[in-house]
Amino acid sequence: MIRLEQIGELAISSPSKIVMLIIDGIGGLPDPRTGKTELETAKTPNLDRLAKEGICGLIDPVSSGITPGSAPGHLALFGYDPFQFDIGRGVLEALGIGFDLEEKDVAARGNFCTVDSSGLISDRRAGRISTEECAELCELLRLVKLEDVDMFVLPVREHRFLAVFRGEELYPEVTDSDPQRIGWRPNIVAATGPRGEKMAQIANRFVDRSRETLSERYPANMVLLRGFSRLPQIPKFSETYKLDAVAIAAYPMYKGLAKLVGMKIIETGSSPEEEFATLAHYFNEHDFFYVHIKQTDSAGEDGDFQRKVKTIEEIDKALFSLLDFKLDVIVVTGDHSTPALLKGHSWHPVPFLLYSERCRPDKVSEFCESACVSGGLGRFLALDIMPLAMANALKLNKFGA
Amino acid sequence: MIRLEQIGELAISSPSKIVMLIIDGIGGLPDPRTGKTELETAKTPNLDRLAKEGICGLIDPVSSGITPGSAPGHLALFGYDPFQFDIGRGVLEALGIGFDLEEKDVAARGNFCTVDSSGLISDRRAGRISTEECAELCELLRLVKLEDVDMFVLPVREHRFLAVFRGEELYPEVTDSDPQRIGWRPNIVAATGPRGEKMAQIANRFVDRSRETLSERYPANMVLLRGFSRLPQIPKFSETYKLDAVAIAAYPMYKGLAKLVGMKIIETGSSPEEEFATLAHYFNEHDFFYVHIKQTDSAGEDGDFQRKVKTIEEIDKALFSLLDFKLDVIVVTGDHSTPALLKGHSWHPVPFLLYSERCRPDKVSEFCESACVSGGLGRFLALDIMPLAMANALKLNKFGA
Repeated sequence: MIRLEQIGELAISSPSKIVMLIIDGIGGLPDPRTGKTELETAKTPNLDRLAKEGICGLIDPVSSGITPGSAPGHLALFGYDPFQFDIGRGVLEALGIGFDLEEKDVAARGNFCTVDSSGLISDRRAGRISTEECAELCELLRLVKLEDVDMFVLPVREHRFLAVFRGEELYPEVTDSDPQRIGWRPNIVAATGPRGEKMAQIANRFVDRSRETLSERYPANMVLLRGFSRLPQIPKFSETYKLDAVAIAAYPMYKGLAKLVGMKIIETGSSPEEEFATLAHYFNEHDFFYVHIKQTDSAGEDGDFQRKVKTIEEIDKALFSLLDFKLDVIVVTGDHSTPALLKGHSWHPVPFLLYSERCRPDKVSEFCESACVSGGLGRFLALDIMPLAMANALKLNKFGA
Repeated sequence: MIRLEQIGELAISSPSKIVMLIIDGIGGLPDPRTGKTELETAKTPNLDRLAKEGICGLIDPVSSGITPGSAPGHLALFGYDPFQFDIGRGVLEALGIGFDLEEKDVAARGNFCTVDSSGLISDRRAGRISTEECAELCELLRLVKLEDVDMFVLPVREHRFLAVFRGEELYPEVTDSDPQRIGWRPNIVAATGPRGEKMAQIANRFVDRSRETLSERYPANMVLLRGFSRLPQIPKFSETYKLDAVAIAAYPMYKGLAKLVGMKIIETGSSPEEEFATLAHYFNEHDFFYVHIKQTDSAGEDGDFQRKVKTIEEIDKALFSLLDFKLDVIVVTGDHSTPALLKGHSWHPVPFLLYSERCRPDKVSEFCESACVSGGLGRFLALDIMPLAMANALKLNKFGA
């Protein structure tokens, strides 16, 4: 498979425009009573029209049988090998709540937990305290400075929080304090290399002060830290693809992932209509548009088959407004499947369509799992999407002579 | 994916015969008026018969979305990873004009260019002078010797020429003189390692003498050199596959590529009838036949849909004469698509068929893009073709026990 640097050598800038519409968790599983998936149940005349005029297939987001989280799923969609570019757990939590990480910040994922009178962990999640209580405790732990290091402690959800360390000479070359086991003592954070010494020392200071501060807050009487990490060094979208790329996404995680690869973030409402209106408004100003729609995934996660069907129909209806635009290339797919039947992300390949004037249409005339099986693109890796979209937009030079 | 050396360990010699028929640029795009591609428009009863009795699919020549040049396209067909075996620009120009490069020769791609009175490049292509003028200037620059180095300067097309340096201790470890920018001065060629010193010195001497010789030949008053390279070290076809392979090709580039991997070259006429007659004539003497037909690509490059259709029909008609031979394995495909609609190579997957007595036929009964989508081989990389052909010819041992 071609490497990102090689694509970078072939990419050229041109006025043509690419829209990548990501309908989160779009793939599903059939309802046993009807034999139809959410997408097969929904009435989607506009997606079907694009499928008919375009070329279809099924993507494996990261690898056959692998259920991806949103981060590796999106990295692959953007053309970055998710096995090569690793996003640390701490950084992921920061992206998820929209915290504006700086280049040298070290972020860690925190858990409020319960320790017994001997200091052994009895509950790694402190009884899943409420998000409100988590916010209150984060406020208690918030320290303006720890020595010369600025600290940020922010609630995520339930027992989860984010700790960010900002200062000179901080490197994430340290072990976790979270042993990820019950009945063990929290680990002392240790450097894994000479550059990690200061980070380890500061992290242990933070943990010690947190223990003192929380001593009366049973069950949330201790903290666990893991996944110390910095923003990964990722080649920028603009440099790799020579694209002026923007993200139209309502949720922090997706704005964060787009920002990570160097896209500009455009503020938008969260309904499909609002997101497409935002796209229309900015259509002349940029040449790559990543549009993320979250509601399908949320419905799938809730196990709500009918709500997922309804959401897909709303997206399809809103899509009509876009079809009059000169979309040189439009790609529609998801970052993974989220079958309502499984109430979560899954490994199932995701329906994919690409429309351009030069796409060599296939015989698929409906955008859904069972029809995409026979698509002209077959089954392929999400990593191949960006080169394909670039080629269809005539933004890639010939390889070799 | 299996590596070339591993195939080499499994390959065995046997009397069975493999024909690889490469119809250059065979894949296309539909004519908007009919919805049919060139191949779908052409009447091809013989190819269709092979498709019906054989197994079909679609190949990506080098990678999804990547438009290959002929060199990487062919390397992949021959089973050599085009990202691993890089053919330098100079070597490629030599192959393209049929110059017989020796093992230690260093070849460079030259441009006649225009420099202004301060020596800054004002046109990298000297106003695209005619090929005739290029030939005349090459004659002027031709030096029998430069110190102890034999020099060859040969016209390619328009402003392009080939420079070959033949002598002791010449290594292509040097930088380009071509800055590939307007308004810059040509670079001094510099060694990138100790072995490149002599080559750099000779190249600069050549450039200096060319500047003097061309001083009155505005706009072609200077030369630019790039892509200094030697023939790549490629494992030979005979050693890897244990095949006695021959190439039946009329154009220099394809003869050159076949020679590069160690095939013998058989002289032939350039029409499909003549090439198939050559194949028939030599059929008993060898066991692998690479047959290259160029005319489809030329018609596609010219944007001449009808001529491409007609050429395909001629190939099909000529193919009839071959079907009575005992072709143990025949593969028919292309090194890339060349849709008349795009007037050039493209990234679209290429129709593929393989016939052998043991090929597990699929339901495809027509050799064309839309039918091959449903082929039994699906969509796959051209790199997989050689192992597949070898297997069908019973020329590959079992891997492992």
